[in-house]
Amino acid sequence: MDTTTSEATTTVETIKTPAYGATNSIFNGLKRMEIERRLPQGDEVHIDILYCGVCHSDVHQVKNDWKNTVYPCVPGHEIVGRISQIGSAVTKFKVGDLVGVGCMVDSCGECQPCKHGEENYCQGPVSWTATYNGPMKPDGSGANTFGGYSTNITVKESFVLRIPEGLDIKAAAPILCAGVTTYSPMKHWNVKAGDQVGIVGLGGLGHMAVKLAKALGANVTVLTTSKDKVADAEAFGAHEVIISTDAAAMKQHEATFDFILNTIPDAYDISDYVSLLNLDGTIVAVGLLGEYKKPLNNMDMATYRRSVAGSIIGSIAETQEVLDFCAEHNILPEVQMIQMQDINKAFDDLLDKEVRYRHVIDMQSLKDEEA
Amino acid sequence: MDTTTSEATTTVETIKTPAYGATNSIFNGLKRMEIERRLPQGDEVHIDILYCGVCHSDVHQVKNDWKNTVYPCVPGHEIVGRISQIGSAVTKFKVGDLVGVGCMVDSCGECQPCKHGEENYCQGPVSWTATYNGPMKPDGSGANTFGGYSTNITVKESFVLRIPEGLDIKAAAPILCAGVTTYSPMKHWNVKAGDQVGIVGLGGLGHMAVKLAKALGANVTVLTTSKDKVADAEAFGAHEVIISTDAAAMKQHEATFDFILNTIPDAYDISDYVSLLNLDGTIVAVGLLGEYKKPLNNMDMATYRRSVAGSIIGSIAETQEVLDFCAEHNILPEVQMIQMQDINKAFDDLLDKEVRYRHVIDMQSLKDEEA
Repeated sequence: MDTTTSEATTTVETIKTPAYGATNSIFNGLKRMEIERRLPQGDEVHIDILYCGVCHSDVHQVKNDWKNTVYPCVPGHEIVGRISQIGSAVTKFKVGDLVGVGCMVDSCGECQPCKHGEENYCQGPVSWTATYNGPMKPDGSGANTFGGYSTNITVKESFVLRIPEGLDIKAAAPILCAGVTTYSPMKHWNVKAGDQVGIVGLGGLGHMAVKLAKALGANVTVLTTSKDKVADAEAFGAHEVIISTDAAAMKQHEATFDFILNTIPDAYDISDYVSLLNLDGTIVAVGLLGEYKKPLNNMDMATYRRSVAGSIIGSIAETQEVLDFCAEHNILPEVQMIQMQDINKAFDDLLDKEVRYRHVIDMQSLKDEEA
Repeated sequence: MDTTTSEATTTVETIKTPAYGATNSIFNGLKRMEIERRLPQGDEVHIDILYCGVCHSDVHQVKNDWKNTVYPCVPGHEIVGRISQIGSAVTKFKVGDLVGVGCMVDSCGECQPCKHGEENYCQGPVSWTATYNGPMKPDGSGANTFGGYSTNITVKESFVLRIPEGLDIKAAAPILCAGVTTYSPMKHWNVKAGDQVGIVGLGGLGHMAVKLAKALGANVTVLTTSKDKVADAEAFGAHEVIISTDAAAMKQHEATFDFILNTIPDAYDISDYVSLLNLDGTIVAVGLLGEYKKPLNNMDMATYRRSVAGSIIGSIAETQEVLDFCAEHNILPEVQMIQMQDINKAFDDLLDKEVRYRHVIDMQSLKDEEA
């Protein structure tokens, strides 16, 4: 037994860390709180958090939309920071390295998906451990995890990403969730040069999907309800924009797409988009984690051998790959920097579709508050 | 212009042919009627029909369940017969050959799918021409086609299949629809030795799917509501049978299948089966041509990167392939031979799930009636 990583048999030193979180499911805003972080042991690194992205999942989770939230809940899974301490068994990183943490901080390591480097599909007893609200046992029990809306975090090195040189660290954080969540299915379903790709929704995920699909060589069409996002969509690389409430435009594009990535985070009628798929086309939903509004019609599916699929985040290897891909192709999320204290306004903006296109918290604001 | 195949510029000789069909959508049973068949021209062959299978689609179509039926409607798309005359341009067949006709008798020949030998996904102006109730123009207009519930049929040779030697012609007919409809998606989604394959529904399609999946080397599990079909399922090659109304058995098999083929012909809740798929598993519906009962939940989809797809019949090449595959592997549909005059009782049995497992009409019964 490796006692260096076993909390049961080792005294773990902890430090008090300021954070913003929700205390219960009667959501009335995130509040400042204090959490405990352990100092790094064995293969763990301790990270001084510089920036943290604000993901739509953060809103879902603190409001208990998925009925699995453990309180207190400190969100944040798009973390960029600098290593400040390392455990004795760390081999990959050193103090001072610029690193990232995404949606996962652990997985079982034993199941087939874990052995094949697909930790995001871990089939261990409690699945993968989410960066916050983990390890998500079905009954809500187990030690909770706290995310990046705080000034530091301790993570085992195999779940820590290297931020490539040349990537603007102020904007990089959203790559760790929005980036890999859209990149992973595009790679899995083999999006390639010349493919007709539709991106539904131009928010945090969608705008990254457009840039990544464009860099993969696809002909990208954005489908959005927001007429005021057309110019942005084109600037991000879309060669066409469809206003999805325009029935004639939708009809005109029937059976034309090889692949559609749907980033809408709330219930919708997927049939509206299924009919846009060409023969053997696939639509993958990455935004919604719940029920669609209406049942599928298999007549629409069968006559073009269409597929409807889902995908969740991406593996650690894919997260590193998308970070490197973004550095190589000069892709950066469009971010609006906010202060930690403005998080509740930021959540409201997110629900009002007012974000262009991802909020990133400058964690200096929380450190200054502490001082 | 090839005038030998153009009805517009050539006098086409026709013969009066007895048939059973429905005269209108107020369905009160199939009735004997007389239709006209043209004698073969150019690349067409004229077939003396020996046997015709009874497919669940026949019931849906005569009852106008898909809202596209053109009356009179003479069903039948599992046709086995012997060539009695050939047009002057026929090269592939000769008089006396044993042949089959499946669900299609024509397609545009010009679109990408047609050029790639996937006529069943023809994207021509009226899609492929169905053996009966074709060419299915959206407004119901266009020359109707009449199926195999009749004593003869004329079809262009490229849509005619060769019945391999050694295949019992009394039982072969269902391979032309039930066989290829289940074989095509299993080949497309690469069902292979060792795969965990579920077959939902043990009827005309399902029982063929079990035999074909078994011959492909898969570990086959049958999911059925009919306890009295367990022994048959095992005899056909299933290594396990789940009674799908047994919630505990369903729960126990969660996330265990690589591929599920669902042959249920009426609306059901597909989520019951989605949860049985393992990582990257796909469920393909081939029975239902309409809406599912309930919406999908993308949480179930995303967490295992599952896919829901549809598939419709199979190509001409695949139909020949499955006929040859059945001959090679000694696979035959389980058939109950009926007389043409018993067709309405046969339809009732089909709806009452009383068929074991496919009715085949001995067309001699209609010829005798005529004499």
